[in-house]
Amino acid sequence: MRKILVIGAGKSASYLIKYLLDKSESEDLIVIVGDINFSHAKKLTQDHDNAQAIQLDIHDKSSRQNAIKNCDIVVSMLPARFHIEAAKDCISFGKHMVTASYISEAMQKLNKAASQKGLVFMNEIGVDPGIDHMSAMQVIDRIRDKGGKIILFESFTGGLVAPESDNNLWHYKFTWNPRNVVVAGQGGAAKFLQEGTYKYIPYNRLFRRTEFLDVEGYGRFEAYANRDSLKYQSAYGLDNAKTLYRGTMRRVGFSRAWNIFVQLGMTDDEYTIDDSENMSYRDFVNAFLPYSPTDSVELKFRHALKIDQDDIVWDKLLELDIFSNKKMVGLKKATPAQILQKILMDSWTLAEDDKDMIVMYHKFGYELNGEKHQIDSTMVTLGEDQTYTAMAKTVGLPVAIATLAILNEKITTPGVQMPITKEVYEPILKELEAYNITFKETEVPYLGYNQLNL
Amino acid sequence: MRKILVIGAGKSASYLIKYLLDKSESEDLIVIVGDINFSHAKKLTQDHDNAQAIQLDIHDKSSRQNAIKNCDIVVSMLPARFHIEAAKDCISFGKHMVTASYISEAMQKLNKAASQKGLVFMNEIGVDPGIDHMSAMQVIDRIRDKGGKIILFESFTGGLVAPESDNNLWHYKFTWNPRNVVVAGQGGAAKFLQEGTYKYIPYNRLFRRTEFLDVEGYGRFEAYANRDSLKYQSAYGLDNAKTLYRGTMRRVGFSRAWNIFVQLGMTDDEYTIDDSENMSYRDFVNAFLPYSPTDSVELKFRHALKIDQDDIVWDKLLELDIFSNKKMVGLKKATPAQILQKILMDSWTLAEDDKDMIVMYHKFGYELNGEKHQIDSTMVTLGEDQTYTAMAKTVGLPVAIATLAILNEKITTPGVQMPITKEVYEPILKELEAYNITFKETEVPYLGYNQLNL
Repeated sequence: MRKILVIGAGKSASYLIKYLLDKSESEDLIVIVGDINFSHAKKLTQDHDNAQAIQLDIHDKSSRQNAIKNCDIVVSMLPARFHIEAAKDCISFGKHMVTASYISEAMQKLNKAASQKGLVFMNEIGVDPGIDHMSAMQVIDRIRDKGGKIILFESFTGGLVAPESDNNLWHYKFTWNPRNVVVAGQGGAAKFLQEGTYKYIPYNRLFRRTEFLDVEGYGRFEAYANRDSLKYQSAYGLDNAKTLYRGTMRRVGFSRAWNIFVQLGMTDDEYTIDDSENMSYRDFVNAFLPYSPTDSVELKFRHALKIDQDDIVWDKLLELDIFSNKKMVGLKKATPAQILQKILMDSWTLAEDDKDMIVMYHKFGYELNGEKHQIDSTMVTLGEDQTYTAMAKTVGLPVAIATLAILNEKITTPGVQMPITKEVYEPILKELEAYNITFKETEVPYLGYNQLNL
Repeated sequence: MRKILVIGAGKSASYLIKYLLDKSESEDLIVIVGDINFSHAKKLTQDHDNAQAIQLDIHDKSSRQNAIKNCDIVVSMLPARFHIEAAKDCISFGKHMVTASYISEAMQKLNKAASQKGLVFMNEIGVDPGIDHMSAMQVIDRIRDKGGKIILFESFTGGLVAPESDNNLWHYKFTWNPRNVVVAGQGGAAKFLQEGTYKYIPYNRLFRRTEFLDVEGYGRFEAYANRDSLKYQSAYGLDNAKTLYRGTMRRVGFSRAWNIFVQLGMTDDEYTIDDSENMSYRDFVNAFLPYSPTDSVELKFRHALKIDQDDIVWDKLLELDIFSNKKMVGLKKATPAQILQKILMDSWTLAEDDKDMIVMYHKFGYELNGEKHQIDSTMVTLGEDQTYTAMAKTVGLPVAIATLAILNEKITTPGVQMPITKEVYEPILKELEAYNITFKETEVPYLGYNQLNL
């Protein structure tokens, strides 16, 4: 029996563990699930004969090392900052490792040691990063194989609420870490490449420079730029591409309304608001508006942001009840971002029977035989329920498939890596199709830079 | 003969040294001017019999310590970060010290040692900080002495171009460090107090939340908020004040036009622009606008910022020649802020015969015998030429006067301090009057919060 150690039994581990347990008989697997909270681990193993739940504190060296020594491959589903100690142990004890996280500098430094020991350290193999890498590289390699030259690559992903559960004016609910949504785009200007020219968007303009994306059967979406669209330029072999753009998808209208919070300063996470605990939502809003003994917070707000009385943005704000003088913030020494998050969680938390949705959209522009072409490729995955969410499925399945492929020596190239080689993406994308994670490709006229994005 | 060591013979040292040399006969003074560049020191001492110029590198321990040992008091006119080594030597050798800089944490830590040795370490005794402290505390103490209770304090300072040299559309030229102007307001939300409520303004709104200030004989100014208006709340004894606001003054219209740069991201100092060296000014502007093969940079700019064709803001931009495709940036790996600074220096550098101006405006609201009152106090100082500028005068004179007062034991309270006690401000403000640095006070109806600042 081969032993797989899964560390972290959080949201994204459900599908991963289910996949591995479903294969455990035919593949001779024991799946050991370790979590700092034993009951979480126990819940996901569900008394399966080939599963074992253990209490595991990643910071407890001896129990961590004992668990790692005792397995054949380690899957870390912990937050990215916790991988490195386990990764070092994997080097020491000669174990493969899989994570869905971005490759940190510390992780990258283990590349030489992993390579020398013949260990596969597969990272960025969730949905974004993960499925985006694999699905993009599959098309890019195919275009190259027939002699085409990539001149444009744009890639967008969104974690959204499924259409059947989409019942608020923002067309948005939190399907993942709410904090990441509130502080999205902060920390520096977004940088991308348009027709050979570097372009920069500061945070305060980010949500006003969106572009539209139509997905057949699902309608129109919009996307705002990620901070660094050039991150994978070299890894993807796109050093000669003229347009590179990566973004985050939302339903149309989200960004224009979100920009209101950005403009007022409500998404700032760098300082704490005085006496935040005893503020009403209305007091919080008023802290960003000038004092007046007579004018209402509503009128000051409309005036400051130039919001007409018939603007749908206003209804979106009212829906969140941000002008309530009854609802209290109740958070001590909270930043504006933390307070805003709390207000949003009142409205945007998934209900018991709500389902989520992952949407991905790639654009590939290329030259072949002197002519320009474009392929658009889209993927939509819907969640089943609150445990088997689209997010858990699209993160967990590629991790699980890669883990088994490494154990079965179908993926053998050692070293710290992400899934951008045929050896890795072909078998994984093939198997994902069986789980209805499929891309729909269409040939469209080459558009070049996005002409609507003025 | 008493020996005064002045370290740093930069812009702000001219008046300071002139004052001390003018008094050197009657007061038995030797003024030693040390600068890393000997010729700078030599220029300001002008072969005066009681002056001595020396080459002094603040980082060269032995020459620094020899110079400090050999004097009775040290005046450091270096940038604030360079004071601390000299300050520690002053403690070791028992010398008083004077600077015009904000009290750093490191400086504050020397308070105990300075106090124990009976040494006066006077700081923040230039113009802002300096004259603002003294002139404000004089009025605050007077109101308190007659039983009044301060409920509002607002304070504004501007370093501007004198009316006779005010010949551009921005009504602004660089009269001090240009870099500080370009990055002004960055690094966190501005915080202030209005009628008992904390208010916060994010950077992207800072230049749209100005208030107007009228100075008799000089017309109308505007002011944007400083980052921390509450910094001196306790030091001034204003813990019960309901409105506290500090700001920076500009001519009306500056901020609305400056906000264009803020919105586009051109003031960002946190990242470098690719290939900045070979960009034209037009390329730089275009980096913040979407690509188009046909639309002009001008139209994209107007559309992005919603600038009408007859908006004066547009003329201000044209005046700076920011759309030039001939003028080159020519700076390697430059940040947007560095590039913008270069563009502005083309237009905003003082000409040979230009004069500068310092403007200060305080508002004091108070309650006395159940009634509310307000005193507005204004000061305007004009420069004489490019050496004896208003900035050098208002920074250098209070430093010089304080230095002599400490030598003459008129200021004796030891420790690290700023000029907020009567012992300090009364004699200095009195003497400044002889140099035409005077405040004009007017009783006005109590207005409370600024009603125009919506």
